[in-house]
Amino acid sequence: MSDDTRARSFWAWGYQDRFPDAEARAQLGAQLFALLGLEGPPPPPRDAPTLAGARVPAPRVDVPPALASFCTSAREDRVTHTYGRSYRDLVRGFLGDFSPAPDLVAYPEDEAQIQALLAWAASARVAVIPRGGGTSVVGGVEAELEREGSGGGGNKSQRTGFTGAVSLDMRRQDRVLEVDATSLSARIQAGATGPRIDAQLAPHGLTLRHFPQSYEFATLGGYIATRSGGHFATVYTHIDEFVQSLRTVTPAGVMESRRLPGSGAGPSPDRLMIGSEGIFGVITEAWMRVRPKPRWRSSASVKFASADYEAAVAATRALAQSGLHPANCRLLDRREAMLNAVTFDGAHVLVLGFESADHPTEAWMKRALEITATHGGTCPKGPRHSDAQAREARPGSSGAAGAWRDAFFEAPYLQSALVSLGLIVDTFETACTWDRFPALHRAVIQNVRAAIQRVTGRKGLVTCRFTHVYPDGPAPYFTFIAANQDGPEAALERWAELKRVASDTLIEHGATITHHHAVGRVHRPWYRRQRPELFARALASAKRALDPAGVMNPGVLLAPEEVHDAVDG
Amino acid sequence: MSDDTRARSFWAWGYQDRFPDAEARAQLGAQLFALLGLEGPPPPPRDAPTLAGARVPAPRVDVPPALASFCTSAREDRVTHTYGRSYRDLVRGFLGDFSPAPDLVAYPEDEAQIQALLAWAASARVAVIPRGGGTSVVGGVEAELEREGSGGGGNKSQRTGFTGAVSLDMRRQDRVLEVDATSLSARIQAGATGPRIDAQLAPHGLTLRHFPQSYEFATLGGYIATRSGGHFATVYTHIDEFVQSLRTVTPAGVMESRRLPGSGAGPSPDRLMIGSEGIFGVITEAWMRVRPKPRWRSSASVKFASADYEAAVAATRALAQSGLHPANCRLLDRREAMLNAVTFDGAHVLVLGFESADHPTEAWMKRALEITATHGGTCPKGPRHSDAQAREARPGSSGAAGAWRDAFFEAPYLQSALVSLGLIVDTFETACTWDRFPALHRAVIQNVRAAIQRVTGRKGLVTCRFTHVYPDGPAPYFTFIAANQDGPEAALERWAELKRVASDTLIEHGATITHHHAVGRVHRPWYRRQRPELFARALASAKRALDPAGVMNPGVLLAPEEVHDAVDG
Repeated sequence: MSDDTRARSFWAWGYQDRFPDAEARAQLGAQLFALLGLEGPPPPPRDAPTLAGARVPAPRVDVPPALASFCTSAREDRVTHTYGRSYRDLVRGFLGDFSPAPDLVAYPEDEAQIQALLAWAASARVAVIPRGGGTSVVGGVEAELEREGSGGGGNKSQRTGFTGAVSLDMRRQDRVLEVDATSLSARIQAGATGPRIDAQLAPHGLTLRHFPQSYEFATLGGYIATRSGGHFATVYTHIDEFVQSLRTVTPAGVMESRRLPGSGAGPSPDRLMIGSEGIFGVITEAWMRVRPKPRWRSSASVKFASADYEAAVAATRALAQSGLHPANCRLLDRREAMLNAVTFDGAHVLVLGFESADHPTEAWMKRALEITATHGGTCPKGPRHSDAQAREARPGSSGAAGAWRDAFFEAPYLQSALVSLGLIVDTFETACTWDRFPALHRAVIQNVRAAIQRVTGRKGLVTCRFTHVYPDGPAPYFTFIAANQDGPEAALERWAELKRVASDTLIEHGATITHHHAVGRVHRPWYRRQRPELFARALASAKRALDPAGVMNPGVLLAPEEVHDAVDG
Repeated sequence: MSDDTRARSFWAWGYQDRFPDAEARAQLGAQLFALLGLEGPPPPPRDAPTLAGARVPAPRVDVPPALASFCTSAREDRVTHTYGRSYRDLVRGFLGDFSPAPDLVAYPEDEAQIQALLAWAASARVAVIPRGGGTSVVGGVEAELEREGSGGGGNKSQRTGFTGAVSLDMRRQDRVLEVDATSLSARIQAGATGPRIDAQLAPHGLTLRHFPQSYEFATLGGYIATRSGGHFATVYTHIDEFVQSLRTVTPAGVMESRRLPGSGAGPSPDRLMIGSEGIFGVITEAWMRVRPKPRWRSSASVKFASADYEAAVAATRALAQSGLHPANCRLLDRREAMLNAVTFDGAHVLVLGFESADHPTEAWMKRALEITATHGGTCPKGPRHSDAQAREARPGSSGAAGAWRDAFFEAPYLQSALVSLGLIVDTFETACTWDRFPALHRAVIQNVRAAIQRVTGRKGLVTCRFTHVYPDGPAPYFTFIAANQDGPEAALERWAELKRVASDTLIEHGATITHHHAVGRVHRPWYRRQRPELFARALASAKRALDPAGVMNPGVLLAPEEVHDAVDG
């Protein structure tokens, strides 16, 4: 799936050669406007930016001679390490604005190099931005700094001012180091991408089986630092559940937990690191729970009439509470189903799947379809069952599940293309308890639609699917698309307003600001309203213990003043 | 199951009237010696201690007038709050030694009273020992203090010296406050015992379905603070998985997390509190994930020949990795099977069960028995299937599963009786990856047996069962029984040596010092070898933020100097 020899775009999602030419983009715009009923005409596509045209400030820090073997201030490295891949990043990149570029980029090959880098950074007051695949959609890998002298006077500026920033790129540490097939475990370096991990596990008949939308490029360390959500719709939803032990290099030293299938010895050390988004240190490797590739699969797409969204939700809830543990259980509302080319008949579609390396899954699917039928769901084509040993099937490559999966991995590419048309296209996701979902869903759709109308003067589209479901609630994922005739510059400002409305709505309805996109810098104001104040103080105190100089990914999760308050308090 | 009107023993496990008379205990001793082939004769039973004979120091602290409505220094309250129910606690209680008694016992009715107590404790330098059911087997509820002036000089003594201790008993806060049947969730006060919780959930058709061995008496707050292990042998092994949100009163204020089925917003605030054993504050209530009572069940006992323990382990591993998620999957080795009266034919027994409120479980059991048969397991009586709606069954009340379950809840009572015979009877438990289990198992059995021979001059018994199993490893639970003719005083010293040998063996073989008994004060030296040093520093820093005066359960998890180091460092 990924290919190390293909060049990645310096601003857009994924491989450079996947960015469509102007004619293709114009056609795409026309199709999308027609499909979604957006008021047209679509704006003409602008030319893609060039690397030569990127505006990058001069580096403020020189490469320290001791780090020169793995550290660079070369322009191209700095440009390609400026942003993640949020909508905001795409627009800024498209406009050639690379003003937040890091001053240096480091490609350490081992922990010793990381330790040397962190020691230098602490002494030189250089911020360290850990980076895996660079696919953050929440500003998690951007050097947005308080510059030297910019924050208050006296002690505080000494603690918070930075002389520059270094992007710590983990790509050179991408090996599977050990496989324990008995315990279905593997020790994996944090810089390995999803495809690199699976390619190295394949000879053992094993797989990590974690497929976030960023699978092609995101790395294990990034998965863990951001609590990535993956393949399984139930039970094993987050990467959290696959972590057996962690090794992290912090400015205060190396922290490594014991390989354990479970433990009751104090609060979990791994759970403090999982989701810490680089504020304590850099995850360098992990023992991960892996699994044999599934042999048997059953899949079905269950349709609910356009008027029956409530029944579709009730059916999905019943499945989540059934103990059947489907691998796939994704309810797409009718607009989402259309957007993903799953169906165009106005039905809501529940994409359902079971898989196993141990046993045929017919019995599970049979019961699941009984449940959905109770709620009025129909499965016109019936379920499909496959046995990988019986025939070389390409499971999931056709039918609703296949259409959905193809669209799933295609979506980020599509988003980049639409940015060049000036469109506002973004997603946000959350989780809430079932009792709160109807009101949340109604409010999100209404509020974001109203905001689109307000800021663009036109109707937009807001769609919803469930990425994961729990016995106590769903993880809804929303996409919004708004026409914008005034170019990417105007789009950025309008997007910020839509994002604010969406985020406020989540927080006000008791939901989380993120189920698996992480907090980063973009979600921080809403995370602040969500997390317990005392937990932030505990987190800031822990950060002080592990990162005394405060150089690790500053501004992520905690605002600089929150760390200071804990220090001074 | 529990009964508020029955008096609990002031020193032994559970209800006072469950402690057998001298004749019954003499008979028990004779039976046990015969059954286990211990070298006899069993020592004669001593008289049970009397409350009047308990030796208790005078309280060093007076009840503050402002707290008098819920706080007492009465002798009986102090005696009954001196210990948990570890082997060491039972022996000391049996000997009438209540020297570590807390000075005061508080029974707050609400959070305001807790806050008043914590504020007073911080200002008066009184240690606060949160207490649920008082069933800790690791010294988690004992006031083992550095006394005022005993620790170093200057600042340190000010931080660590205590003028006394108060036991904070949560029993008055035992209600289910809210039920959200749609999200299968309930808001429950931390002082509610297992039976109290289930009794209040029953009218809603719901249950917490968490059955630690301490179920009769332990409380929700205790479950959560100690990462209690429960009913389900797979997936939902620890109470951790049932916590939706937490509310904790700390000296720095109240910390409450949002009700969420899942989240990716930073490290989980709940996971920092789960397993914190009272060092940050007192959990006062939690939103818990509950579930409908199961309707369908399938159970089976699978036997493996005495020589085939390895095959039995392999079968259990295959089940743990199958994705079938059995509710019960407990492998008892032949000695454990005998000890629990499950079978006396020398077979190892795998107690297997599936349950569901949604669907019949025959298909699951069928596949599970195919797996065990592959490894040579036999199921002579075949599986048993039941449907609670078809007949008023008492599932699990007969057969191997029933025998095991009865023995399970009886075991703590038995232990108390055996203490009065001077026997050394204790359990310890752990978890490790499958690859390490054979060597660990061999070493534990050999080392503890050799230590018994060394300290008692006689052969003892060491048995093993799995309480929980994971795809990557089992949670083995060991019981050891040693004859001891020299009375409880000698037993205590000998026990300490056996405990040391057992704990060293766990740590040296890469296992955890505890899978679900917690760390407390007893396991602290081994926890120190297990947990990452930097994590302890992070934990100590977080403690400083939430408990600036350091009064919360001092000596649990972290040694006093570890907290100081973080403060001074």
